Amino acid sequence: MKAVHKSKPAPGAEYGLVDDIVLKPDELLVKVHRASICGSDLPIYNWTAWAPKRFKTPSTFGHEFCGTVEEVGKGTRDFKKGDFISVESHIFCGLCYQCRNGQRHVCHQVKIIGVDCPGGFAEYAAVPARCAWKHKDDTLKDIGSLLEPFGNAVYSVLAEDVSCKSMLVMGCGPQGLFSVAVGKASGADPIVVVEGSKYRAELARKMGATAVVDPDEINSLDHALKAGDVPDGYDVVVEMSGATTAIELALKAVRMGGRVSAFGIPPRRVEIDWANDVIFKGIRVYGIVGRQIFETWYKTDHLLRSGQVDIRPLITHTFPLKDFEKAFATMSSPERKCGKVLLVP
Amino acid sequence: MKAVHKSKPAPGAEYGLVDDIVLKPDELLVKVHRASICGSDLPIYNWTAWAPKRFKTPSTFGHEFCGTVEEVGKGTRDFKKGDFISVESHIFCGLCYQCRNGQRHVCHQVKIIGVDCPGGFAEYAAVPARCAWKHKDDTLKDIGSLLEPFGNAVYSVLAEDVSCKSMLVMGCGPQGLFSVAVGKASGADPIVVVEGSKYRAELARKMGATAVVDPDEINSLDHALKAGDVPDGYDVVVEMSGATTAIELALKAVRMGGRVSAFGIPPRRVEIDWANDVIFKGIRVYGIVGRQIFETWYKTDHLLRSGQVDIRPLITHTFPLKDFEKAFATMSSPERKCGKVLLVP
Amino acid sequence: MKAVHKSKPAPGAEYGLVDDIVLKPDELLVKVHRASICGSDLPIYNWTAWAPKRFKTPSTFGHEFCGTVEEVGKGTRDFKKGDFISVESHIFCGLCYQCRNGQRHVCHQVKIIGVDCPGGFAEYAAVPARCAWKHKDDTLKDIGSLLEPFGNAVYSVLAEDVSCKSMLVMGCGPQGLFSVAVGKASGADPIVVVEGSKYRAELARKMGATAVVDPDEINSLDHALKAGDVPDGYDVVVEMSGATTAIELALKAVRMGGRVSAFGIPPRRVEIDWANDVIFKGIRVYGIVGRQIFETWYKTDHLLRSGQVDIRPLITHTFPLKDFEKAFATMSSPERKCGKVLLVP
Amino acid sequence: MKAVHKSKPAPGAEYGLVDDIVLKPDELLVKVHRASICGSDLPIYNWTAWAPKRFKTPSTFGHEFCGTVEEVGKGTRDFKKGDFISVESHIFCGLCYQCRNGQRHVCHQVKIIGVDCPGGFAEYAAVPARCAWKHKDDTLKDIGSLLEPFGNAVYSVLAEDVSCKSMLVMGCGPQGLFSVAVGKASGADPIVVVEGSKYRAELARKMGATAVVDPDEINSLDHALKAGDVPDGYDVVVEMSGATTAIELALKAVRMGGRVSAFGIPPRRVEIDWANDVIFKGIRVYGIVGRQIFETWYKTDHLLRSGQVDIRPLITHTFPLKDFEKAFATMSSPERKCGKVLLVP
Repeated sequence: MKAVHKSKPAPGAEYGLVDDIVLKPDELLVKVHRASICGSDLPIYNWTAWAPKRFKTPSTFGHEFCGTVEEVGKGTRDFKKGDFISVESHIFCGLCYQCRNGQRHVCHQVKIIGVDCPGGFAEYAAVPARCAWKHKDDTLKDIGSLLEPFGNAVYSVLAEDVSCKSMLVMGCGPQGLFSVAVGKASGADPIVVVEGSKYRAELARKMGATAVVDPDEINSLDHALKAGDVPDGYDVVVEMSGATTAIELALKAVRMGGRVSAFGIPPRRVEIDWANDVIFKGIRVYGIVGRQIFETWYKTDHLLRSGQVDIRPLITHTFPLKDFEKAFATMSSPERKCGKVLLVP
Repeated sequence: MKAVHKSKPAPGAEYGLVDDIVLKPDELLVKVHRASICGSDLPIYNWTAWAPKRFKTPSTFGHEFCGTVEEVGKGTRDFKKGDFISVESHIFCGLCYQCRNGQRHVCHQVKIIGVDCPGGFAEYAAVPARCAWKHKDDTLKDIGSLLEPFGNAVYSVLAEDVSCKSMLVMGCGPQGLFSVAVGKASGADPIVVVEGSKYRAELARKMGATAVVDPDEINSLDHALKAGDVPDGYDVVVEMSGATTAIELALKAVRMGGRVSAFGIPPRRVEIDWANDVIFKGIRVYGIVGRQIFETWYKTDHLLRSGQVDIRPLITHTFPLKDFEKAFATMSSPERKCGKVLLVP
Repeated sequence: MKAVHKSKPAPGAEYGLVDDIVLKPDELLVKVHRASICGSDLPIYNWTAWAPKRFKTPSTFGHEFCGTVEEVGKGTRDFKKGDFISVESHIFCGLCYQCRNGQRHVCHQVKIIGVDCPGGFAEYAAVPARCAWKHKDDTLKDIGSLLEPFGNAVYSVLAEDVSCKSMLVMGCGPQGLFSVAVGKASGADPIVVVEGSKYRAELARKMGATAVVDPDEINSLDHALKAGDVPDGYDVVVEMSGATTAIELALKAVRMGGRVSAFGIPPRRVEIDWANDVIFKGIRVYGIVGRQIFETWYKTDHLLRSGQVDIRPLITHTFPLKDFEKAFATMSSPERKCGKVLLVP
Repeated sequence: MKAVHKSKPAPGAEYGLVDDIVLKPDELLVKVHRASICGSDLPIYNWTAWAPKRFKTPSTFGHEFCGTVEEVGKGTRDFKKGDFISVESHIFCGLCYQCRNGQRHVCHQVKIIGVDCPGGFAEYAAVPARCAWKHKDDTLKDIGSLLEPFGNAVYSVLAEDVSCKSMLVMGCGPQGLFSVAVGKASGADPIVVVEGSKYRAELARKMGATAVVDPDEINSLDHALKAGDVPDGYDVVVEMSGATTAIELALKAVRMGGRVSAFGIPPRRVEIDWANDVIFKGIRVYGIVGRQIFETWYKTDHLLRSGQVDIRPLITHTFPLKDFEKAFATMSSPERKCGKVLLVP
């Protein structure tokens, strides 16, 4: 079969033939229908940051994908050839304390598809059956690879109820844009975003943002509070950017007794005014990783299927799988003029 | 009346006559029965750290106290001369969003008795009636000044249920010791503490600690996990020390998906491994300040009155109010050989 | 001053002069701007059911109203002449366990304005300052009497998060209609209602209901499940009708592990299949009375002020206060062809 | 192999040879070490109530048991011959909404071992691997069959936090006695029980009950409130008896805004004062069935292993499996002079 393959520990990847998959008893063989590029695929592609320490070549990457079941492992239940599935990228063990207490997303044995084992930038992929989300019908077929990343935002925003609450979203890459949409559908109001790119600011408004604030302006905290007419701070702040300045701003912009969901990964350690911004404010900070399996998936599916959220406008580019280099170039452009980028095998 | 008085912006204080109190309509005049010294009284006394920026001289300090109502303001309800009360030190407005949404402890207009207005190291004190906790009887009379600080620990520990959960307490000053007792009474197990003072380690064991770990030993994190037989980390970590190294250790010692209550105030900004210790672990961090008014007070009263917790062994020193200098010397000794120190007017 | 007055323990009431109000220190004198009729005003007016046992004549009734502060009691804070307020009808003591633990709506000493003391079907009314909700501006002035009843629905629906949840509303009087609107604004989907009146069914659709089911049809349970495409039952059922058959249907229509909010008051004891419908289904039943003070008020104000909910279409009739008899006739008509009925002093 | 076998649809059972088990790929073959008799085994044995409608003869019953893994199905993970396990009696599908949202105990496809398929009153039993709770060591080996029923009480009591809360337990069969112990270990205080049998009242006191009230005395509600010194009602009421009068008393004895856990199964429909006892009191009623899988199991294991709870005193009788008739006679005696009754194959 053909795949986007990283044959050696260096920048770049190749499109070509790789060995066929030998299916394990608990796996499904999936014919990939759509894959999408995650921000975390860039270090693997460019061989930067954490990637050389964790990714073992040769292998195939890509963890946002969907497809049709071609073959079911002998030990699986509930799936059959032809089922259309989206893939939960975190392979959880199902047996540890976290897995048996509603926290599979932080399983102690977790492996990530496309990072710790071959992924979905390929014609076919093997997926443990317990990581498969079976679709009822074809309604979401063309956006099936987006349930995984959209789920990050669903979990980040809905870690607590947002109905009747003011919300600030830090950063409007795809995750921030998704967050705006989830907040909008769930009754958050106002929803203000902090984003420097005008292109993305425009997308944020389309998804339902009340106002957009430029993080590089002087007194951006004041601007953020004024934009939402919340002089005492936001009920909820969703940090999707990973910028260290944004993390600090998030803690300052939340109201006394409010909630911060921290999703964006900063590139280094972060210095925090723990006394004034965490303790004296009496806030709650939630570290958000992945999405709750499968609590979040039900919400994700519900929001998209019902039409309460339409994420199709955020798919700004689609490329054939073999043109993956163009896709990565689009994702890496300094103007950040893209939403989600899709690959079609 | 006589009081411990700070007449000028400098270290120290004097015991002597001060002006009598003129009671406001919403206040109670309290004849102080017992007062206790909080760690946060030390900067005021020594005129260090935040104190010069906030405390306005001349005034009287002390915010942990109890006493008998001598006179009731004309606008008050529900109190009469002779009632015995403990005092909530946070004067909340009662009218802001936080006050009307179960978060009076982070009221936007909050003033602290003994900091922003005259306090309880005196024969008499004025207290807004809404900050008074009326005792049913004399059961807790001799420890009435301790409900306020004990409440900090009650809120810190019980911010979420601890039944059947493993708990690590960072630092065993009075707040850490209280936390051990609260955890023990509420079903936490094991309860391990991190504390360098042997004197305090001994007190911790008396309050119910399973084991004590020295923070200065090499590999203190490993020791902490072994001491509780929790290789994957603690369900709950209660940070009562304020040491920056302890805050970092707290985040590392909590299990994936666990909870950290942050109460101890660090002296400066804190550098955190936000990505690995907050986000990827999927933890919850609660900033804890004061105690929930009056949710925590009911629990505090319940634990002490029922005998589920006995904090009397932690009262290691009692002085007449006029000997306040000895009391502060005891609190400030480098060996930290004291629990709570009481003053009797 | 003039008021709708019940001078004797019998059906009916009179419009005429009554004694002027003597204001207590903790009260506000309110010039009534709008009042609205609650379903629970009918028994008082008609002198049926519980009314003869509880309502003491002579007095004035009406508990849904708003108006302008004319005079402030000497013991009050935070209000001044000219403030526009809506009224929380439950006079809570503020000092009992419930009041100090976020449950003022079930205060042990509760008295209801317009039931246990004179109410708002009058030119002026006295209201304890602690029961006043001060408006920021005039945005909600014409619907100011509706915050109180709308709050019932807000509390009923949002007793738990409804985002991404299916919801069934039993009965579409004003409370059911409000509930549809609250669910819609907070992300519930689908929202199906059970209501026999075609007039009200039409209003329900206007408020956002997905479908309407007639409770008198054979197999109404099956119809209800089909209408929402939820063969296994609804995540949330909001019982606003008080009909004993509806209460039973509510318990049967909720899914295994789902939630029922019970607000509608049945006229007599109710027989329940406790084993099959409560225990074996593992459901949660919440008794809902009044609204959380002031948690619900903030949500109520938010939903209306932001425009997320527009309840003006539900005001179907407005009468001068002196024409109260026409207003009650409208409310009592067997065709139930009305939404909320307003009175203007 | 030998088993207690119900060969025909009639009262009684026989001890004798039955067909050997043919293991399915997802099952474990368990050599039964201990089994215990549940109250719900009595209708099966006596062929009364619901049993004839649901239990299909010929089959073997018994759903509380533990044992050693003899053989592992080919499709299983994480188990090996020699592992000691306790058994979750509810076979959940693992794939429905409830199973994937933390509510496996109310799985839509649930089957109960020993009811819907052969059970544990036998030398060997087949158990789906996903229903096995693997023990770390032999600490709980002799009480391994009791984790399942003890878990009912753990879930009933800890459905919400009980620290610092007053608790009333209705009925002190084994489930009521377990509930007392769980409440005690988790900080509930006082813990009052309602039980008519003096024998069981004595056991309740041993488990930590503060007081025992006879339900047959006049004014038992008053007695219950006085016994706990809670004139306004209990924070938590745990209904373990299933008596219709007890269910009504439970609703009346809980405080305004309190919580009722309903576990005991009444023999028929129950008439309730829905208006006064549910709605106007603003209470929460939780239907409790089984136990949360595996959230409750972790708590169950923790309480027993740590020694916070000792349930061994409640094992009042132990019989060889072949003497099952004596065991059932003990359980059925009108004096109810027994706690848990164990069978040893």
